[in-house]
Order: sequence, then structure tokens, then C-alpha cells
Amino acid sequence: MLDRFKVPLADQVHVSDAALRQAVAAIFEKCNLTPEDAAIGADVLVTTDLRGVESHGVSNMLRSYVQSYQNGNYNPRPNWRIVRESPSTATIDGDGGLGVILGPKAMRIAIDKAKAVGVGIVTMYNGRHLGAVGHHAMLAAQEDMVGMCMTATQPSVVPTFGAQTRLGTNPIAIAAPAKQQPALLFDVATSAVAGNKIGLATRVGSNLLPGWVADTEGTPIMEETPVRPRGQYFQLPLGGTRELGSHKGYGLALMVETLCTMLSGTLPFGLERDTGYKHFFAAYNISAFTDVDTFKENMDQMLEWLRETKPAAGQERVLYPGLLEYEEERERREHGIPLHKEVIQWFEKITNELGLQPLQTL
Amino acid sequence: MLDRFKVPLADQVHVSDAALRQAVAAIFEKCNLTPEDAAIGADVLVTTDLRGVESHGVSNMLRSYVQSYQNGNYNPRPNWRIVRESPSTATIDGDGGLGVILGPKAMRIAIDKAKAVGVGIVTMYNGRHLGAVGHHAMLAAQEDMVGMCMTATQPSVVPTFGAQTRLGTNPIAIAAPAKQQPALLFDVATSAVAGNKIGLATRVGSNLLPGWVADTEGTPIMEETPVRPRGQYFQLPLGGTRELGSHKGYGLALMVETLCTMLSGTLPFGLERDTGYKHFFAAYNISAFTDVDTFKENMDQMLEWLRETKPAAGQERVLYPGLLEYEEERERREHGIPLHKEVIQWFEKITNELGLQPLQTL
Repeated sequence: MLDRFKVPLADQVHVSDAALRQAVAAIFEKCNLTPEDAAIGADVLVTTDLRGVESHGVSNMLRSYVQSYQNGNYNPRPNWRIVRESPSTATIDGDGGLGVILGPKAMRIAIDKAKAVGVGIVTMYNGRHLGAVGHHAMLAAQEDMVGMCMTATQPSVVPTFGAQTRLGTNPIAIAAPAKQQPALLFDVATSAVAGNKIGLATRVGSNLLPGWVADTEGTPIMEETPVRPRGQYFQLPLGGTRELGSHKGYGLALMVETLCTMLSGTLPFGLERDTGYKHFFAAYNISAFTDVDTFKENMDQMLEWLRETKPAAGQERVLYPGLLEYEEERERREHGIPLHKEVIQWFEKITNELGLQPLQTL
Repeated sequence: MLDRFKVPLADQVHVSDAALRQAVAAIFEKCNLTPEDAAIGADVLVTTDLRGVESHGVSNMLRSYVQSYQNGNYNPRPNWRIVRESPSTATIDGDGGLGVILGPKAMRIAIDKAKAVGVGIVTMYNGRHLGAVGHHAMLAAQEDMVGMCMTATQPSVVPTFGAQTRLGTNPIAIAAPAKQQPALLFDVATSAVAGNKIGLATRVGSNLLPGWVADTEGTPIMEETPVRPRGQYFQLPLGGTRELGSHKGYGLALMVETLCTMLSGTLPFGLERDTGYKHFFAAYNISAFTDVDTFKENMDQMLEWLRETKPAAGQERVLYPGLLEYEEERERREHGIPLHKEVIQWFEKITNELGLQPLQTL
């Protein structure tokens, strides 16, 4: 995550992951979730915060989830079911349940199928927000599989040459285990910048960078610009302009739409709101392709080689996706998760409203 | 393709796809390929040219293939074999065979597995150049499946913040059928610009655009720049700079490396040359997920909706991946394929050397 998105030091209040987990689960239970589902949801969100992915952790997402449960947009007790199935596939009707909670269940089905026949692919419609797609992909990596996860969301991104939003920020994640090195964990929006990062930028008062958004005529804004009110800008696909490759970001978003939405038998959110968000989960059983030990040793060798790349002029080191998240998690498990003081205020308010114990800070 | 890559009108010589197919197959046979394999290779290359993807068609690739057969880098009679298999997966040792020819065979195995159990995933090591990955993905789309194809190639791209090349241009393709609309066919390098486009730029005398390449210290060159000799620049991942999202392009290249190389049980080309290029083929049987008719009608609706997007200021229309290729193919089937006169000269030379009939021009 770029520094511009981080919570400024002066605004940080630290909480332990255990305290945060407890508080979030209690809030979810007050939203009428089962204790099991509340615990899953809390685990996904807090693990995401531990990894430093604040855009998709508690601070940025929980209040919108609570609001959606309260206004009936999310179903706290979804009767989700498999509507079509084959040895390596399943299509699920999510019945309006929060993806953060149904995601691990869908990935579990994919993992079981991959154990049986080599690969498991699960799609879901009638879904709601999936949280950090990388989290679900990691569940497969923890089972000696390569995991992938994608989600197709509400339109906020213009196609290349377009002046109307058509596609979501449609993120893609892949996770793969190594032996000694931290796992590969790649999780990015196919837009130039994630939608939630614009939320973070608003909270911490940062500008948007050139090539991230277009004006309402669809023209990419190629200088730094303050965050504009919703409706006064469109998001751009990864690449920003056609010359820099925005047709690639646009196509990747369409790839996500095809795998999530079309393979669920539904239409994009912008054409058909009532089938919700659509998701895609894939588990590739490593042992079906090669020896698990060979795979993990090869991963180690590749990831070390990437870390040892000579840095560019003025740069400190070369990373790989998942490395910073691993380092952040170690740090935060020990010293706590830094939340913005404004998020702490929200916790005070909501725990008070719901008659819960206040969130304990460090 | 950007105009800067197209063959200038004054340099165009037109040939029919039938004549080109015949000439290419004859050249392949002279390289000691079986007539069947020669015909497959000619079909893949000429279909790619028909689609207007000149970077991966006859003009840009054939002479390097011929050279590689002649110098023994490509095996004209590969004894390729499945080394590990499960109901939905296969890992293939390509035995140094040209990917352009082995690709359709690997995708056929994936398609057959998808017919049987829902999804088929095939990886291949000891591979050579795969040609246009989109071509192989389309083979699945023609069977009412979603097809995907990727390939991991020799290092030419720096990781974000790096000053040494580590990853290939590692392209990703997806193809999906529609009912009335031309199929979705997305095929892009995960680098800011495809390696072969740099070859095209050299031939047609175009500059490279900002954000496409870095200098040898790894610093992205952010102004227009003439093509430099090999070794005096590095390619940049899609995004160009960290701020514009190069970590996304870098991660996508690593995703390709993980699916192609790691799932083949091998190491990246930069670490282990003797296992060649690695490939990934996926076929998702639509009927395992949803009704094929519903899928295709939904595709139609989505693709029409994308085409009808209000254009940005100064733009003519909004496209989707595969649309221009479809239009180009219709045009070229009728009026012939425009080759650069320099390519025609090469054909004169090679057919003469090999004792073949000259390529017939229109």
C-alpha cells in the first residue's frame, strides 16, 4: 500500500487482534448472524487488518456491513445452496449473504473438489461484498493448493474510450505456498486504484494520482487531483490511458466478469442489480500437477531470486506480493493493529448503541 | 493494436489467407515437421494474421521459428507426453516442440477433460514459443466453453523497483462465446507493451511511448523514446510505474509464472533455461455451471451494452476485446492480408533457398 493511504501516526490507536476479533464478532451477532458465521466474518476482517490491507479490513468495511444488515440489503441467515454441480465445479446461489462469510465456505467446496479430481471451481451469484479476495485464495494455499478468487461488483470503472461506468473494480487474487519463504499472495483491483483506496484517501486527506480517475466526460485526469465527490469522477481501468495499457485493465475486468458473472448464469450488476455481486473461487491441487515438495522448493527459489533482484536507482529493495503483508502481520500480532481514531469513535458509538462492551484499546 | 504498429500503406503487399497458409505449411514441412503438424502451425499463424494480430502472425514470427528449427532449438518431431494426470488435470512434457503446434493439442486434452468432469487444466514444460495465446483459448470457446491460456517466457521485464529482468512478458488470454455478437477474445501481455510490438515498432520506425520501458538502472522512461538496441532497456510491467500500478502488472506476470511454471514442477526460464517455456491451458465447460443458451444470451447482452457505452470526449466508439479482431478477419478474408514488403522479400529468399514455389501475392 502506498504511504499516502496509511493512517497518520498522530491518528493511530492500537488494538490487539484478539480484542478486535471479539468486538467484531459481537457486533455481527447483534446483526442476527449465527455465532459461527459471526466468528468467520470477524476472522476474515481481522486477518485482513493484520496483513495491513486496511482498505478491506475492519476500519473501512465493518460499518458498511452493519448498515447493510440493518437496512435489509444483506441476509444474516442466508439459505445458500448449490444450484448446479459437476465433479470439479459448483454454482452457488448465495441468497444475499455477505461474501466475507460465504467466501470461506465456497472455497472449502472448491478445495474438496480439487482433492477429489484435481481442480475445483465454484461460482456464486446473489452474493454481497466479498472482502479481500486474497483471503479466500490463501485458504487454498494453506491446503497445498494454488488458490484463486475474483469478484464482480457494482459499476464504477469506465471501459477504455468510454464515458459511462460499466465494470466493477473487479479484483483478482492468487495465492501459492512456499516452503521457507512467506507465501505468494497477490490481490489487486483491475482498476488503476481500488475503490476502497479512494475511501482511505478521503479519510487521510490524500490526493489521487495521475491516471487513476477520469472526468465525467471520460477523459483521464493526468495530474494529481483532490478526491472529488461521488458522481464527479469515474474510475479508470489499470493502465489509465489506452497508450499506457488501459485496454488491458478493461479486459482483465471483463475476464473477471466472465468467470464470476457469466459462469454463474447471470448478468453484470450494472444490467441486473437483483442478482447481486458474483464471485469465483478456484483451487488447483498441486499434487495433481507435480510433487508438492518440488513445487514449494521451486517457489522458494523463485521468490528469493525476486527478492535478490538488484534494486532500481533510488529504490531500497524488490518485493513480491505477500511479503509486506507477511511482515506486517508479524509486526501487528506483536504490537497491535493501528486504527484511525475516527474508527475508534465509530466503535464507541456502535458498541454503545448495541449494548456491547466497548472495544479494548492497547 | 495502436496505429503506430500497423504496416504503412505504401509498404503493404496483399496475400490471400489460402496462399499464405499453403506457403507456411510448405516451409514447415521443409523443417522436417509432419504434414499434419505443418498444417496446424500454418493454421494458427495465418488465423492470427487474419485477426490482425500481426505481432504474433506470420510476418513477425515465422522466420524466427524457421531459424530455431534449423539451429536445433526447436524439435520438429517432439515426443510429447503426459507425465502426471488426474480427472481434471494433466502435466505435459513438450519435448522442445513449438507451442504454436502443441498448443491446440494441449487445449484439446483440456476440452476433453472439461467435457468429462466440468473443468480441464493442462500445464506444459519443455515448451517453445506458443504464438498468440488467444488462439488456443478460442479453441475452447468454439466448443461452448470458456477458454484460458497463458505462457511464461524468457525474462525481459523488471519487477517493480527492480533493475534486472526477471519475468517474461507472460501473456494472459480468455475467450468466451456469445450468440449473435462476435466472441470475447482477450489476449494481452502483462508487460506495459508486448515484446513483439517492440519488434513491429522497429520495422515500421515508431517510437516507444512513456511508461513502456525502463533504462538500464531500472528507472521508468516517462517520455517518448526511440527503440533502443537490445540490452539498453528493460521492459516495464503493465502500469509502468508503482503509482500507476506496475505492482499489478508485476503480480499478474507472477500469477502466470505460478500457473504455468510452478504447476509444471519447474523453475522460471531465468533460473533454468533447459526446461524451456511453460504454458497453461484451461477449459471451463459452460454447461457444468449454467445453461449454455443463457450464458450466450447473457454474453450478447453484456457485449452489446459495452459497445453502446457513451464514448469519451473525442473518441469514436467503445470496443470490447475481440471485436476489432472479428472485423479485421472479415475484411482480410475478403481482401487479403497486408504484409510488409520486407516480409515478402524474406518469403522470396526462403522459398528460393528451400526449393519451394514462391508465395503468391494478390
